[in-house]
Parts: sequence; C-alpha cells; structure tokens
Amino acid sequence: MLSVARLLTAVCLVGDVLAQTSTYFSPGVPTDTPIAGNYTGAYRPRVHFSPPTEFMNDPNGMFVNADGLYHLYYQYDPTATVAGNQHWGHATSKDLYTWENQKIALWTPNNYTFVFSGSAVVDVNNTSGFFPNQTNGVVAIYTLAQYPNNAPGPQTQNIATSHDGGYTFDAYASNPVIDSTSTQFRDPKVLWYEPGQHWVMVLAFAADFSIGIYTSPNLKDWTPQSNVTNVGLLGLQYECPNLVEIPWEDGPQETAWLLAISINPGAPLGGSITQYFAGDFNGTHFEPFDRAARIADFAKDNYAGQWFSGIPGTESQVSIAWASNWQYTQQVPTGPTEGWRSQMSLPRVNYLKNATRIGYVLVSEPYNISAVYTEELAYNSSLGNSSILLDYSSVESGALYFEANITSLSPTTAVGALNFTFSSSISGEYITGGTVVNGDTWLDRGHTNAFDNPFFTNKFSATGLYSGSDNGTWTISGVIDRSIFEVFVNGGEQSGTMTFYATQPLDTMRIGAAGIAANATVSVGVWALADTWAALADANGTVRGNATGSVSNGTYGRM
Amino acid sequence: MLSVARLLTAVCLVGDVLAQTSTYFSPGVPTDTPIAGNYTGAYRPRVHFSPPTEFMNDPNGMFVNADGLYHLYYQYDPTATVAGNQHWGHATSKDLYTWENQKIALWTPNNYTFVFSGSAVVDVNNTSGFFPNQTNGVVAIYTLAQYPNNAPGPQTQNIATSHDGGYTFDAYASNPVIDSTSTQFRDPKVLWYEPGQHWVMVLAFAADFSIGIYTSPNLKDWTPQSNVTNVGLLGLQYECPNLVEIPWEDGPQETAWLLAISINPGAPLGGSITQYFAGDFNGTHFEPFDRAARIADFAKDNYAGQWFSGIPGTESQVSIAWASNWQYTQQVPTGPTEGWRSQMSLPRVNYLKNATRIGYVLVSEPYNISAVYTEELAYNSSLGNSSILLDYSSVESGALYFEANITSLSPTTAVGALNFTFSSSISGEYITGGTVVNGDTWLDRGHTNAFDNPFFTNKFSATGLYSGSDNGTWTISGVIDRSIFEVFVNGGEQSGTMTFYATQPLDTMRIGAAGIAANATVSVGVWALADTWAALADANGTVRGNATGSVSNGTYGRM
Repeated sequence: MLSVARLLTAVCLVGDVLAQTSTYFSPGVPTDTPIAGNYTGAYRPRVHFSPPTEFMNDPNGMFVNADGLYHLYYQYDPTATVAGNQHWGHATSKDLYTWENQKIALWTPNNYTFVFSGSAVVDVNNTSGFFPNQTNGVVAIYTLAQYPNNAPGPQTQNIATSHDGGYTFDAYASNPVIDSTSTQFRDPKVLWYEPGQHWVMVLAFAADFSIGIYTSPNLKDWTPQSNVTNVGLLGLQYECPNLVEIPWEDGPQETAWLLAISINPGAPLGGSITQYFAGDFNGTHFEPFDRAARIADFAKDNYAGQWFSGIPGTESQVSIAWASNWQYTQQVPTGPTEGWRSQMSLPRVNYLKNATRIGYVLVSEPYNISAVYTEELAYNSSLGNSSILLDYSSVESGALYFEANITSLSPTTAVGALNFTFSSSISGEYITGGTVVNGDTWLDRGHTNAFDNPFFTNKFSATGLYSGSDNGTWTISGVIDRSIFEVFVNGGEQSGTMTFYATQPLDTMRIGAAGIAANATVSVGVWALADTWAALADANGTVRGNATGSVSNGTYGRM
Repeated sequence: MLSVARLLTAVCLVGDVLAQTSTYFSPGVPTDTPIAGNYTGAYRPRVHFSPPTEFMNDPNGMFVNADGLYHLYYQYDPTATVAGNQHWGHATSKDLYTWENQKIALWTPNNYTFVFSGSAVVDVNNTSGFFPNQTNGVVAIYTLAQYPNNAPGPQTQNIATSHDGGYTFDAYASNPVIDSTSTQFRDPKVLWYEPGQHWVMVLAFAADFSIGIYTSPNLKDWTPQSNVTNVGLLGLQYECPNLVEIPWEDGPQETAWLLAISINPGAPLGGSITQYFAGDFNGTHFEPFDRAARIADFAKDNYAGQWFSGIPGTESQVSIAWASNWQYTQQVPTGPTEGWRSQMSLPRVNYLKNATRIGYVLVSEPYNISAVYTEELAYNSSLGNSSILLDYSSVESGALYFEANITSLSPTTAVGALNFTFSSSISGEYITGGTVVNGDTWLDRGHTNAFDNPFFTNKFSATGLYSGSDNGTWTISGVIDRSIFEVFVNGGEQSGTMTFYATQPLDTMRIGAAGIAANATVSVGVWALADTWAALADANGTVRGNATGSVSNGTYGRM
C-alpha cells in the first residue's frame, strides 16, 4: 500500500495547481503504521484515550459510521511532548473506551504549515461529488495554519477526502475552501442541516470573539451567513465552536440547538474552558434562548469538546473533550517520566434538561461506563451515615467507577453530604471531594505532590439546585483513572474534570455519607474498570494499534 | 439625646398605622454609642475597614456628602461572628482608609425581621418632602427580610430618613414602599437620574435572575419600568445590583452606564462573585452593549460591591466591596481568635476603558493610596533582572503598598515577568504572585496554614491583553494588609482580591523581575502604610469610634 501522504507528494510534482496537496513527513515518524506506544506508565489512564507517545490536544473529526464504529482524530505533535508540529492523529473504537490506534490521518503540507483542529462528516449522499460509488465517503474539514519564519501566518480552511471510511485522506486539489489572510481563523465544525439539505460550518474568528456560520451544498463552496459575536465569557480567544441539535428533556420543544464555544486563555478559573448556549437555529442563523453564560465543567481540565457527527438530533449526543488546560498541559510530569502528554475526557452522553430556575442545563454523564466494568468491588444499598473503606491495590487498571445515591429525600429531609477520598497507602497523598444535598459539590487535588505550577489550582466547586432534590434523590458518581478524575452530580447535571499527579499510585478509597436524615436511604456501589490498553499490548507492553492496516467498514487499500 | 430607635419604640405605641416602625434591640448591643472594637489582632487589616466586633458582610448605603465625608454602612450582625441578626453598621471617613465607627444606623423592627442590604441617597432637592428645611437629608432604602419561625418570609423594600446627615434614621411610617410576598426580592440601590429628574432603583428578583428597574419622583412611590433578566453568569441567585454612570476613557461616548450584578452561590470559582455589563440607560431601560459576561475580580474575595452615591457620572466612580466569599466567610479563623469576621476591599477608583478586542473593561485601582503612605521602604528605578529583598518586620501596620513597572517595551521586547513573595521569617509560610508581560497574572495563597476549607482555593489567575503592552509598559501593584492582599495589573485593568491566614505574621518581601529584555526598564517601589486604627485606639487598643456623638456635616441631635 502506498500511503496517501506519499501519493500526494508524488502528485504534487505534476503541476502548480496541485501544490497545496504536497506533504511533509517529519523525520522518524512512521507513515504507514500507527505509532507504537507503551501504556503501562503509572499516570496512563486505562479507560481514557491518550496518544501512543508525545503530545495530544483537541479532539478532531469525530464521527460515527453507519456500523457504529467511532472515529476519533486528535491534534497531535508526534515529535515532542509539547504542542507545535500539529497533525491529526487517529484512533477508532466500538465502545468509546477501548481504542485501536491508527496511522496518522492528516500530515502537514510542509514544515512550516500545521494541521489544526477541525471536523469530519460522512457524505452519505455524495453531495461533494467525491464519492460517486459509495455511501461511506468521509470529508475532513480542517484549518491549515502557516508559520513562515516561525511567525503566525494565514489560517485557512481546507478539506480532504477519504474513500476508505476515514483511514487515509487525500487533500482536495482546490484547497483552501475558505481562504483568509487572518492569523486567527480556525476550527471548522461541519454538520448536515437536514431541513435545508445543506451543510453548515461553524468556525472561530478567534480574536474577534465571533463564531462564523457558513453554509455549503457540497462541502467545497462555502457562503458566510451570519455571526454570533461577543456572547458569554470572552477570555482572550474563542476556539473550537460546535453546533449540534440535541434532545431537550422536559423542554418546550423536543430538541434545541446547542452552540459550544471554547475560550482560551482567560477562563474564570484560568486558562481554558468551554461555555455553551442553547437556542434556535434556522440553517443560517443561531439565536440563543437567553443572554446567560453557562460553563460546561466546573473544574479546570475540560476543553475543546466535540460531538460525534452522525447521531440524529433526537438522540442523546456523544462528546469527548480534551482533558487538560493550556496553563500547565505542557509541563505535566507525564512528559519526562512516560513520554506522552494529555488525555481525552471520558466519552459523555449529552442532552439538555429543563432545570429549576436557570432554564436549561447541559447534562453530561459517562457513556455506557458499565461496558468496562470488570468487577463489583463494593455495594451497599443501605449505608446510612457511615462509610466504606476499600483497598483497591489489586485492581490492575487502578481505575474505578463509583456511585452514591441518596433516595427518599423529602423537603424536610433534604440534608446531608456524600464524601469520598482516594489515597495512597504509601505516601498518604490523596484527592477528595463530595457533595451536599441541594448545595455545593467540591473537588480537591491539592494533596498530590508530583506536580506544581502557578496555575495548577487545587480546589473546584459548583453549586446548583437545577432539578435539585425535587425528585427525592441526590447522587454523585465518578471515575478515577490513574491521573484523571471525573465527577458527575445528579446524573450529570454538573460535572467536573480534574487531572492530578501523585508520586505514588492511589490505592485506597473511602466513600460515605454524613448528616443524612433517618428516613432517607444511602446506597453506594464501586466497580473496577478494565485495563483497556493492556488487552492490546504485546508482552513488552507495547501497543501497536492497527499495524496490519485492516479496515473496519471502509475500503482501505484502494490505492 | 434620645436614640431614634428608642423614639420609634415609643411612637409605635401610638397606633397600628405605625406598627412597622417598631424597633427591637438585641440584648447587650449598645444603642447610643458605637460598638467598641480592638483592632490589634494579627489578622486585623490596618488600611481596610473591618467591623469593631462580630460579623460584617455587604457594604450598604454608601454616599459621599457635600463636604466630602464618606458614609459607609454595612450588613452587620452585632451579636455573632456569623451572619443572621442583620443590622446596618455605620462608619465614616474622609480619606476612605481612616474610619470612624458610628452607632448602628438601622435596627431590626423585631427579633424575626432583619435589615438586609440597600443604599442611601442625599435628597438635596427635597423630592421626598421629608426635608423642607435642609439640603442634606438622607434617605436609606433597604430590604426588610422576615423569618417568622426561622423560615424565610417576605422581603420588602423600605425607607428611613435621616435629618442629621446619615447618623440616625427614622423608619418611614408608610413602609414598605415596595411590598412583596416573595422571599427572594432584595438589595435596592437607588440613584438620581438627572435627565429625567427622577429616582431610579435597581433591585434583585434574586431567584429569577432578574434585576428590576423602578422609578420614583419622591423615593416613596415606585413604579416598575423594566427588567434585565438572565444576563451573564447565573449562579444560583442574583444579588446586590448597582447601576451607575461612569466615564469611558477613549470610548465612543464620554460616559456609559454600568450594571453590576453579584451572584451567589455558583460563581465559576465557587461561591460569590460580581459581574458587570456596560450599556445605555434611558431612565427606565438598560441595554447592554453586548451579550458578553465580564467578571470584576479574578480571585475569590470580592462581592457585593457598591458605588458611592453623590459622584457625578463624568468623574471616576468610587466603590468598596465585601472582601470575602460565602463559601468560607463564616469559618475563617478571625472569629475564634479575634472576635470579628470579614473586611471590606480597598476603596477603588473605577472607570471604563476601551480595551483591545474585548471592547471595554472596568478599571479598578486603589483610591489615592498615597494618602496612607508612611515611609518609602525601597525604590529602584532600574532594577533589571534582579530582585529586592525587604525585611518589613519593623513596619508597625504590617501593611505595604508596592508597584513594579516595566517600561520602554517594544513589540519585540514585550517579554519577561514580575514576581513577588511575602513570607514569614518564623514559619516560612508565604503568599506569592506575579505577572507575565502580555500574559497571565497569578496569585497563590496555598502556603499559608492557619485555615483550610474545601472551598478555600489556593490559586487564581487572569489573562488579558486589554491595552496590553501597547503603550510600552506593563505594571503590577498591590497592597498587603495583614490577612488580605489585593493586586492590580496595568493600572487596574485586572484586579484580584484575596484573603489569607498564616499562623505567623508575614514580614519579608521579595519582589523582582526575570526575563526582561535588555532595553526595557524595570522600576520597583515599596511603601509602608499607616496603622489607621491605632491612631484611634486608647491605651488598651480599644477603638471606641464616635462615642461622643459628634456629627460631621449633619444636624445631629435634633430630637
């Protein structure tokens, strides 16, 4: 098989008209096979995606194909544990927890132009004309960012086509599809607008705090239609917009449209964060329901989330975010100790819910986490005001899922708290958190000692009554996975994503309740999670990914 | 002198119509004199206002009279170091740093109704009819919050009049002026709208995330005109709205109108914070310039700020905020160790500035801090990439002001950082912070050990280019005052307010620069600040305030 990238290099000799499709290969980076990685390090998450080596940031190009295979691309520098030499890495999964690494999907056209964030769609109806004989043609839409002489140059929007279901791509000969001289114009996210039978792109005029909305009949010719400008928190730049139709539980309409905008730097907690706005969308214009600003995550490690393309708006949407923060991501200890940096968030199920007083809230909870349960470690359906102490050092993955639920609450018994601590029996380091019924939820990573930085904030909290304890319950759940912790309150009405770095593995869990009224009930369960990467590793712990070039649901190897 | 409060008690015997003017005196709380306080404790700020004893929260009723005397009232529970039994405490100042404690100004009408936040105005033109023979009549507008059987009851808006310039008040016989059955309806802030020759009140429908705008010709009869709803961050409640006309430096118009809304709980950093919106105001309707949300302070201890009434909109406005956070204010160690809790922020000069890309920013810098300089401790006009180490244990106040300025920056030399640390030579505890040219500013209180709490976040940061280094300078300044630190970047384009609690006094300062280009200049100055409370204390350290009942610029003692 000749790699598409090398093919493009050959093609570009043909003539100037195809010059934009040239390809540059960073020395030493494999082109025909996935990059091998070792996932056995102490900080390596076991149910979260992280890159085989080096540096990853934003999720890109996420789509699910007709056979239910999820494709995740990602901002990837395969040559350093810091950002810079940006490509699109690639991985696939059937369950969103067990990932098969694939070859790098998008290469840079030269050594001073980088492939920045973007999206991908399946052009089922061949609107583009690229796919006359197939219904699974994939178009990636991405930003090329030039840095001539290391200075920021133009950012333009480009497309590439894949005839093998998303594994290999050809750059479009007439790129860019949206030209620009701006150095701050990026991150196209494309969706199919069914009522209008056309494509819609949202992308960021980053320094203008403006999201441009473009339309196209064919993914090649784009027409600017409107802008959403100066909404919510500004920070210093808008990035990675997403527009998606999403169910609205108990809402005045079955679905609504959700516009997510990531901001960096300048989030209230420092660095990067994502905010969202629900509203109406008519195919060309988005109008938020109100002028309020809502933040997607209450901690500091959730940015640039993207929704999988290919899920109908009447079904819960599925997203993955980058679980780090630009304020410290390039300094975290996984770089020097294990040769990689950054992980994705858990896959999340998302929908809107009508929420007491604040109108609506974006629900975010783990996607079918029970798929990676390996063992029930503890379960108590009537814990009362006590706690469970659990030694989980024998859980190979070091990854757990837990739930604690208070039920049978009444207005006069809506009191009490649920608390948890994960600690190291060796060093005493710990992370902790909890939630008060109808009150605050908090997280604290301040007692882990392998990393510090002026921006590595220790504590995060959220308050929300949302649906509150109105239905008689108050719940918290979470996943701990080596160096990342994610928490969910009341079925995902609030969520917090927090990385942490302890000098010794955390191996002891305590979870319990306090101050609960006598007639309320507390149930707690804890499950061990799979070591999804170990199953893919050879005897040396090396994960080679899809090294044979086999293709699921594609027509790989056509060239 | 018969106290007004006692007079009201007598009056209320006359008939039912005056029942609302009854007064309840908490046992043991002095009615005729200020409450005495001892300001010598290790945590007591020396240039910030803090209450003589017990618990303080929001600033209230702030106005400056025709002779330049500033009146500060404040939410005050004189009977506990936690909130609950709310009165209006009172103090006056000519320089906003040296405060004379006054008698409690507003008492509760009974033991289950409390005096919540509000404002005060001087009715120069006697629009109210209360002041036929004077131009310095003061009207306080405040919320009475009932808690029958300890459950939340109605919150209504009420007024009281002062004929002696703001020292003693009579409750209006026909209170409330705005009745309600809502338990979440409070914090009236009143201003005179000169173009319409009428009064304007903004107040919070707290649980509806709505600010009501009312008008009145006479401060007694109020007409609802409009609402500003669901703007910016919502948190769980809107509180303490403020509307003020304010200069707009380099703006498209000389002044703009600023609407500030405090939210609590549910701020992005947890607990309480203030956001602001600039826009146009026509006397009845406020329309923000954009849909963006802007936060007034990047740390966690700045809430419920109020602007002094009586300053023309074409002049810089002056504000004071409560420098704490509801997430932990009732647990901080000053309660058990020194018998008081909470301090106000420094007085701040505020105006709008046109800011690169984000449109406008609210500038907030200390009000004439040089008024309380006592000594220049260090000054270096050409520090370069080095630092100054300063033992300030001999500064009696323990309070310092510092400035560090980088000048002669060009686009190619806009690099480097300014850093500072204040530490204890005994315990090694410290607070630290700094700023990177055109980059992040940070604060860290995580290395002080006298207090911890799940919500006592250690680190805060901000990023903003705003005017950036465009004018060739990048500056940071700050005040440390025993247990509170406030920092200002680029003349107040960014500001952060942070309380901290060390087990030993901080007595050593290091401030310096790093990474500054050779052709840029660094200047640093440090000044000792006055111990403003010591000057008012007797030999035992007791501050009695205005115990003789003397009145500045009023007609005290008319009864």
